[in-house]
Amino acid sequence: MAAPANGNKVAPELPRKAIGLAGHDTSGLLSPFLFSRRNNGDNDVTLKILYCGICHSDLHSLKNEWKNTMYPVVPGHEIVGEVTEVGSKVNKFKLGDKVGIGCLVNSCRSCPGCTTGFENYCPEQIYTYNSVDPEDGTVTYGGYSDMIVVNQDFVIHMPKDLPLDKAAPLLCAGITVYTPMKYHGLNVSGLHLGVVGLGGLGHVAVKFGKAFGMKVTVISSSPSKENEAIERLGADSFLVSSNAEQMKAANFSMDGIINTVSASHSVVPLLALLKPNGKMIMVGLPEKPLEVPAFSLIMGGKVLAGSAIGGIADTQEMIDFAGKHNITADIELIGADYVNKAMERLAKADVKYRFVIDIANTLKPNI
Amino acid sequence: MAAPANGNKVAPELPRKAIGLAGHDTSGLLSPFLFSRRNNGDNDVTLKILYCGICHSDLHSLKNEWKNTMYPVVPGHEIVGEVTEVGSKVNKFKLGDKVGIGCLVNSCRSCPGCTTGFENYCPEQIYTYNSVDPEDGTVTYGGYSDMIVVNQDFVIHMPKDLPLDKAAPLLCAGITVYTPMKYHGLNVSGLHLGVVGLGGLGHVAVKFGKAFGMKVTVISSSPSKENEAIERLGADSFLVSSNAEQMKAANFSMDGIINTVSASHSVVPLLALLKPNGKMIMVGLPEKPLEVPAFSLIMGGKVLAGSAIGGIADTQEMIDFAGKHNITADIELIGADYVNKAMERLAKADVKYRFVIDIANTLKPNI
Repeated sequence: MAAPANGNKVAPELPRKAIGLAGHDTSGLLSPFLFSRRNNGDNDVTLKILYCGICHSDLHSLKNEWKNTMYPVVPGHEIVGEVTEVGSKVNKFKLGDKVGIGCLVNSCRSCPGCTTGFENYCPEQIYTYNSVDPEDGTVTYGGYSDMIVVNQDFVIHMPKDLPLDKAAPLLCAGITVYTPMKYHGLNVSGLHLGVVGLGGLGHVAVKFGKAFGMKVTVISSSPSKENEAIERLGADSFLVSSNAEQMKAANFSMDGIINTVSASHSVVPLLALLKPNGKMIMVGLPEKPLEVPAFSLIMGGKVLAGSAIGGIADTQEMIDFAGKHNITADIELIGADYVNKAMERLAKADVKYRFVIDIANTLKPNI
Repeated sequence: MAAPANGNKVAPELPRKAIGLAGHDTSGLLSPFLFSRRNNGDNDVTLKILYCGICHSDLHSLKNEWKNTMYPVVPGHEIVGEVTEVGSKVNKFKLGDKVGIGCLVNSCRSCPGCTTGFENYCPEQIYTYNSVDPEDGTVTYGGYSDMIVVNQDFVIHMPKDLPLDKAAPLLCAGITVYTPMKYHGLNVSGLHLGVVGLGGLGHVAVKFGKAFGMKVTVISSSPSKENEAIERLGADSFLVSSNAEQMKAANFSMDGIINTVSASHSVVPLLALLKPNGKMIMVGLPEKPLEVPAFSLIMGGKVLAGSAIGGIADTQEMIDFAGKHNITADIELIGADYVNKAMERLAKADVKYRFVIDIANTLKPNI
């Protein structure tokens, strides 16, 4: 990959050299980027990054689709690495530990979210990339890079038995579906779970649902995904969302639904699938407001909720559960020189189900 | 009140004579109506009706605004009366008992709703009026009448200490707000409850919230209701929904909201009032679909839910709780000859907060 003219800009002030892949404008194209990170503080852990998953959010940020991108942006919040340095006050991690970093690298520690284990709802949360870190005033850079320095409280122990490349996406995709399943009681053996959309989030939701002992039905607009859902991922049944007859026959049958779809769609036929007091939780983020007739909530005591990633303690719990039940994401492992092609394919949903960058073996200064 | 030409039609087949107030067309006007009810069966309880509350649903039904009215319609589902007959298999009630009937008089007894205490979500629930009763094939007639025959399983014991006229509205308005407060954990001392809309439902929600030991904030479009909310009903604070500054200052402050408003309104500023994982439950029924940006649910893990009336065991629990805490509705007691005027005023929300008809003293054959 040839470095563009602005590809070697070095961010000021911080002492430690790093190399990453950065986007510099709304083209969405990534190129090598030399930058710097802070020294390892008393409460910090430094990681040599081994793998980093590619989340759809990375593409949104690269293209500034959420109108908040600060260029240059180094994406990546599904980070797995090895500890290479620990601060004097770090007691949970030691050199050589395999650890993970998800979407957050800090938060206020005192708000109602932080004090109840929901750092993900802290109004001052610091994202792993594209946030301004109040500690040093710089913009955070994510995991498409060779190393990172993070406060120990936002570092996760990786389970020994999971392959690290396939586990990386759990740090975003996994916790995003695990959290609402936990807090809305959709982790109970014997209950019937619907999973809308079979992509990066959906395929992991199916795996967690089965590990919890649930009956899992995938609801998708793509009839071609039926075999995949049932044969490969172990779902119990499959509904084509455009098949009104099939959908109607499944009305009143589900205890809960995890809705991973970000395209505009009607939630009414999905709410109809729920039993009385059933719950549908949005983890996808459609651009247009959902149209929700009050009637479709009131009749049957239905719940429509949202959920965004998860707290740090829950992330540790999720990855430990994944380790115990051998849950990983289905991935396509790529080299750093393939990221722009991967982004193109991701935009067309042409991946089963997550790209993961083999950082340690392929991201070099001379890439 | 002069009886119109069609006012004395007698429904066929059933053996027991009754008198009621019926609507016969979309004019919404009520007039005296002679009809018949079934004999008291083995599992039935017959009531002499003493009081019946006027719910806004009654007006919707009278005018066929929900497009399902079967005329003639005898409204009324906030019924309090005295037991005058019990069937051979009735063991929970005896002659002279003061009892209540709410919105339901039967259900299937076997669906997921019925078997979990949510007869209100049974797809075959029989409403107290305007349903076809499968037992005898007739249309049910409600509490704007001198007597009613109801299966014992749908009859509620009234607490000894509550005035029966003021307690009648709790059988609909009370259970409608009590159920979501119970099942969404909004009945916990010290939590902060928002109540949107200060009408028949809202004023009762404030009373239950205070009885649960909660901090209660009323959110209303009418600044003039502030004194009423705080001085008379005991709310702790008051927000004018159109005052953006006031609303914004209250963001992230509430654990839950009971939304009683049936007029179209934006739910976004209301969802913003909620703390992380906060819940807003719709018990009002706006005609147009709610516009709900997924973002407003996902950021903060918010819940938007619906709830309709409640189950029978919960209705008994609610009225017992009301008895213990001396909770009643604020009512205007009227004679049967005032109902048409009352409906006119109800349509303009000109009532604090519920009309109740003094059936026993004023509904006579020669009215």
